[in-house]
Amino acid sequence: MNTPLRTAVVGAGNVAWSLAPALERGGLIKVIRVVARTHGSAEALARRLGPDVEATTDNSRADRDADMVIVAATDSAVRQAAEACSGSQAVWVHTSGSVDASVLSAASPRYGVIYPMQTFTRGVEVDLSHAAIYLEASSEKLLEQLRTIALTVSDNIGEADSEGRRRLHCAAVFACNFTNHLLTLAERVAHEAGRPLDDFRPLIDETMRKAALIGPYDGQTGPARRGATAVMEAHEALLPPDLRNIYHILSESIASTYSHEPH
Amino acid sequence: MNTPLRTAVVGAGNVAWSLAPALERGGLIKVIRVVARTHGSAEALARRLGPDVEATTDNSRADRDADMVIVAATDSAVRQAAEACSGSQAVWVHTSGSVDASVLSAASPRYGVIYPMQTFTRGVEVDLSHAAIYLEASSEKLLEQLRTIALTVSDNIGEADSEGRRRLHCAAVFACNFTNHLLTLAERVAHEAGRPLDDFRPLIDETMRKAALIGPYDGQTGPARRGATAVMEAHEALLPPDLRNIYHILSESIASTYSHEPH
Repeated sequence: MNTPLRTAVVGAGNVAWSLAPALERGGLIKVIRVVARTHGSAEALARRLGPDVEATTDNSRADRDADMVIVAATDSAVRQAAEACSGSQAVWVHTSGSVDASVLSAASPRYGVIYPMQTFTRGVEVDLSHAAIYLEASSEKLLEQLRTIALTVSDNIGEADSEGRRRLHCAAVFACNFTNHLLTLAERVAHEAGRPLDDFRPLIDETMRKAALIGPYDGQTGPARRGATAVMEAHEALLPPDLRNIYHILSESIASTYSHEPH
Repeated sequence: MNTPLRTAVVGAGNVAWSLAPALERGGLIKVIRVVARTHGSAEALARRLGPDVEATTDNSRADRDADMVIVAATDSAVRQAAEACSGSQAVWVHTSGSVDASVLSAASPRYGVIYPMQTFTRGVEVDLSHAAIYLEASSEKLLEQLRTIALTVSDNIGEADSEGRRRLHCAAVFACNFTNHLLTLAERVAHEAGRPLDDFRPLIDETMRKAALIGPYDGQTGPARRGATAVMEAHEALLPPDLRNIYHILSESIASTYSHEPH
């Protein structure tokens, strides 16, 4: 890999927006094209990547003059993109936690996955240098090529087949999407008490610091772990029905996780 | 408050173990006694606090020669401790998010609450210098006295009556106890994929960093927000029933939170 791989990016959402520049900064790929559902979104990412980057909405053009196509699109769009380019000479890679690698075989016999286990929001710069990135490839040779590329982004590269990657993605939903949503719910409850979520920042920071230090299992505190039934009932009584249901189910899960402990 | 207040601590659990030394370091209180359910636990905390600190299991001795009694015990134990010292001359304070301040009126007409909104685990040192601490007191004069004491521990002192404190405690259960438990569940799922929770540390860090930066509502990502039904069904299919239920209910909560968005 002496000259950068001429690369098309399919997708212009949160993942493409963060990952494409990070990969390009690594120096081993050069984005020549962005393919997206709307010309406006393709154009916006293309402009971010450089003046000569083509913007198009035409999936069937994705692999033209490209050594590699990176599909960073919604899960259903990965298959559509691959099927639009059957018989492609390029290497095809997707970035999804939940799509089988073999979906890309519709485009090319050389395909793989670069799955960065990270949360991406357009406009929020993210440091990927230690993010776990899991690889899969249709051959050992391609796996090593993808590893070389991924190592320009992060020092934390692993391998996972499609089944393992789906489990990791599911675990990431618990560790990221669900924890984040619980902060949104905490903000709702705190608002009722007239306080902003900022008041909870030292608590949140300490929760995460302690979980990293001794593990979340040992770090668990609160009424559900210590079996404080009256406290939990009082909390449920002041919550609206949707939050009451979540409170109840998570408290039961905690209680059952620590049911061997005396109170 | 020129000479430190002679203070008895009732309780020797996670909160007492962290808060009593922090308060004493502030210089305005001097712990003279630890009262706990077992002599061993009272003795362990007493030894941590100094050679002259009495250890006892006798609730009725709590306020002897004490200017202040701080009850940092389980919620049901607060009432027991207060009732064992009716007619007390001391100021009585508890540290619980969920117990009405007036429970302490069984012991003394001068009572209040110092509620530190933080997660405490014995053996894990915690920096309380910015932790939100909410006060309540039976008089304005006592409130100011408690504020002076609390300010030796944290620069983030607020007020909350018993109802408001209960809501804040409930919000803290979402922001701390539930987020932490979701990390325990993520660890279980990741274990099935043969990976440790350490792989998820950059993801967790970024989730919390982004939530602090732009708020958890705007920072939400994942299949439930983008309506990726097939992904969610695939995840639920690989989870055991208890986790499947939690996955489903939290995904529904996210979907309904963002139901106004187009996919």
